[in-house]
Amino acid sequence: MPAFTQYKAPKRLAELAKDPFDLTKPGNLTPERIASYYGESCGFKLLYGTERIIEEVVDVLKELVLESQALDKMRMMQQGEIMNHSENRAVLHTALRDFFENPINTKASQKAKKETEKLRIFLKKIGDRFTDLVIIGIGGSQLGPKANYVALQHLNKNNKRVHYISNVDPDNAASVFRDLDPKKTLVAVVSKSGTTLETTTNECIARSHAEHFISVTGEGSPIDDKNRYLECFHIWDWVGGRFSLSSMVGGLPIAFAYGFDTFWEFLRGANAMDKAALNEDIHQNIPLLASLIAIWNHNFLKYPTQVLVPYSQALACYPAHVQQVEMESNGKRVDRYGNSVDFQTGQIVWGECGTNAQHSFFQLIHQGTEVVPLELIGFKESRYQADLECDGTTSQQKLLSNLFAQALALATGKMDDNPNKVFPGNRPSHMILGKCLIPYALGALSSFFEHKVAFQGFIWDINSFDQEGVQLGKVLANKILKLFAGKENDYPLGDAFLKHLEML
Amino acid sequence: MPAFTQYKAPKRLAELAKDPFDLTKPGNLTPERIASYYGESCGFKLLYGTERIIEEVVDVLKELVLESQALDKMRMMQQGEIMNHSENRAVLHTALRDFFENPINTKASQKAKKETEKLRIFLKKIGDRFTDLVIIGIGGSQLGPKANYVALQHLNKNNKRVHYISNVDPDNAASVFRDLDPKKTLVAVVSKSGTTLETTTNECIARSHAEHFISVTGEGSPIDDKNRYLECFHIWDWVGGRFSLSSMVGGLPIAFAYGFDTFWEFLRGANAMDKAALNEDIHQNIPLLASLIAIWNHNFLKYPTQVLVPYSQALACYPAHVQQVEMESNGKRVDRYGNSVDFQTGQIVWGECGTNAQHSFFQLIHQGTEVVPLELIGFKESRYQADLECDGTTSQQKLLSNLFAQALALATGKMDDNPNKVFPGNRPSHMILGKCLIPYALGALSSFFEHKVAFQGFIWDINSFDQEGVQLGKVLANKILKLFAGKENDYPLGDAFLKHLEML
Repeated sequence: MPAFTQYKAPKRLAELAKDPFDLTKPGNLTPERIASYYGESCGFKLLYGTERIIEEVVDVLKELVLESQALDKMRMMQQGEIMNHSENRAVLHTALRDFFENPINTKASQKAKKETEKLRIFLKKIGDRFTDLVIIGIGGSQLGPKANYVALQHLNKNNKRVHYISNVDPDNAASVFRDLDPKKTLVAVVSKSGTTLETTTNECIARSHAEHFISVTGEGSPIDDKNRYLECFHIWDWVGGRFSLSSMVGGLPIAFAYGFDTFWEFLRGANAMDKAALNEDIHQNIPLLASLIAIWNHNFLKYPTQVLVPYSQALACYPAHVQQVEMESNGKRVDRYGNSVDFQTGQIVWGECGTNAQHSFFQLIHQGTEVVPLELIGFKESRYQADLECDGTTSQQKLLSNLFAQALALATGKMDDNPNKVFPGNRPSHMILGKCLIPYALGALSSFFEHKVAFQGFIWDINSFDQEGVQLGKVLANKILKLFAGKENDYPLGDAFLKHLEML
Repeated sequence: MPAFTQYKAPKRLAELAKDPFDLTKPGNLTPERIASYYGESCGFKLLYGTERIIEEVVDVLKELVLESQALDKMRMMQQGEIMNHSENRAVLHTALRDFFENPINTKASQKAKKETEKLRIFLKKIGDRFTDLVIIGIGGSQLGPKANYVALQHLNKNNKRVHYISNVDPDNAASVFRDLDPKKTLVAVVSKSGTTLETTTNECIARSHAEHFISVTGEGSPIDDKNRYLECFHIWDWVGGRFSLSSMVGGLPIAFAYGFDTFWEFLRGANAMDKAALNEDIHQNIPLLASLIAIWNHNFLKYPTQVLVPYSQALACYPAHVQQVEMESNGKRVDRYGNSVDFQTGQIVWGECGTNAQHSFFQLIHQGTEVVPLELIGFKESRYQADLECDGTTSQQKLLSNLFAQALALATGKMDDNPNKVFPGNRPSHMILGKCLIPYALGALSSFFEHKVAFQGFIWDINSFDQEGVQLGKVLANKILKLFAGKENDYPLGDAFLKHLEML
């Protein structure tokens, strides 16, 4: 039987979830509640007064932390013990930035630091020779790195651009190379194994458009080859693709476009949140606090999804990144010993920026029949500092007013004589509030999501660090590819699809 | 009691859903099934052999169409009857393209045609004076139009670019204007009411960066003013924002970047799908067929979400567009007479492109504890026609192999002695397959989604055409804005958030 099923805390939480805190009841959601229900780490506050949680729930969630030894597992992970059990690997993305205060100082962090130095020297060597960097990579080699590149675009002063080719769709490469000068373009092939189908295929296309290639890959992979690449940066089997933001996978685009120091500040922020994730006080450990809120909403209030809505255009690509980190890590059906789980694991994570989302799917969140818990993000200050006052307030103030208003409207709802104007309320949300999205803060935020996901996995006692579920599709795709190549014809199910295609 | 609750078909469907078709059972998912379970409209096939549906289910779904008079309602909508009951308005986005074979020929379509002519003349007049078009608009003024602009980028031959400013976040405008030449930039302010907070605020910012403005707005709105805009294009109260792709809202960016004829072909395709949506044979009416599949999965198999995965980089922004169309339209809690519904309405729609999604959240879809029905899209041919053969197959073939393989892997699953390698299967999907994403096909596809959503609303007997649920947030945001402006201080809940902000 899975460990989570045997703990005591889940049974008490299930009881408490039968009659959760009613945010719509007058006098329940008070200013005092909003003032006092919060945690804080690395300059970020996590406000959860608008969740359907009372102190008793928090107390039992703390017991769940103890029962599941979630904090011990976090410490073991950061110290380099085997946490990816199915693949017998350590999980050490925290070592990629363990260069600052009180380092745990594993061998891994020494290797990682060498690579950052290699990157610094490489960038100095190429100087301004290249205006454009094309990254060929998919999954974790694209989603997170692109999200961070977009988040820091205000720091771009010398007009260096980064482009991504991820999809095996030939239109992806064609659209990127259409406007580039081969002499001024550096192509980075990013794949830990060096054998990812999409990436090797797109490199094959890129070789006819560009001249200068580097690689980011596992030591000894087929693309770790200085004869074919100007430079080869390394990652290791203890860095999962979706956790590789602090490796050269995430470092290369940021350092190329915004300078090495920007990447270094990012690492410093990520490391600070790693330390916070070891704090035993859940109110000073916001990744742990967020993971507990998610478990309450998912396992006990039974909401199947969570929407991430950053009120910050800088974080436009963050929902897609966090979607991968959460869903690929925790979308599992067995615990780490192979027992089938009899509870829900990873939720469906989706999202868009606010205020845009208000003009898109918020109708359903306010008045639909599905309840969607929200994770909101906001910042006190804008990045470009190019705000204007219009009708008495700045745009940043309008943005924040909307953020706060949505949390309140969703929580309290509103009665009305016209049934079409009734808002049922009790739609829970929490909010991550920061001062400004500087590189340090971005590092802390990205580490926040990594650890939030890891804590959920630790509490459920699943392995968040493998991805066995992507294998079957690869096997069947190869069978269909053989049909296309005319090499075989022993797959009637695949053939049935090809016949539809022929008749179009 | 809502009509849907009183129909007979839902009761029989609920019975059939207790033991749905088992796609994992040997001999159940056959090539014959894949060959014969499909519908076809306007060059698109909808293949649904990998859904958990048998012919008996299809038969009862057809009865549901009759009971709910869904096809009559579609006809009434296209003829201009009042279908947006709460606002007492016709719903005539189909009139925006009713210029081709067998026109219904409402007054609305004559008005709409005049505007297309105005656009043609305006574009001729400005010639190549502007290289960049900045669209200021949010919600339907941005999501769909941007999705179509991205989808047709391969047609861009004269390097004209379109940019979007939607978010009230000041960084959105700042990042767009950073690289533009005011002399070469045309700004279009797009808002039906002319009073959308985000849009008026961003126009205020844009006026300090650009000189040439036009508007797209309702006749007589505050921004329908030729003294302040070089030209004012009109929409009307019978065009909802999320259904405005065929109006000047969607036409302007496409015609500016790719020429008027491209927009005209788009309209022709959309009109063809409008006609198909009137077809009584559900196998020649794919919007209706898709709506029935969605209702089966949502109301009877009880899956709360649907993921849209286009295997086409061209459709990268389509999930966000369809998300708005579906969730803002059908995220409702009362029927059109104001009765509270006692069944689920609009599902949560989310998505990303394939093959990218395979390297992100497909782990959860294959092996997670949440079941997610998939809507897949694929095309026989690429757009740029710049494909290369690599290892014996083209990229397009690799793309399609993955598309077909995923549908099969998700349906059949796989047993294994290692519990971590078990795929439970029975994860339903259907697939929309087309030849090539030419403008005509894009028009048909966008109309497909509009009508799929409308049919769901017709069957549930809700009003899919208002959005009362966005109002409460606006009211509360204004109260918080007054706190920021120091004009009032009588909102303690809002003030509690502001105090957190101050202490950051």
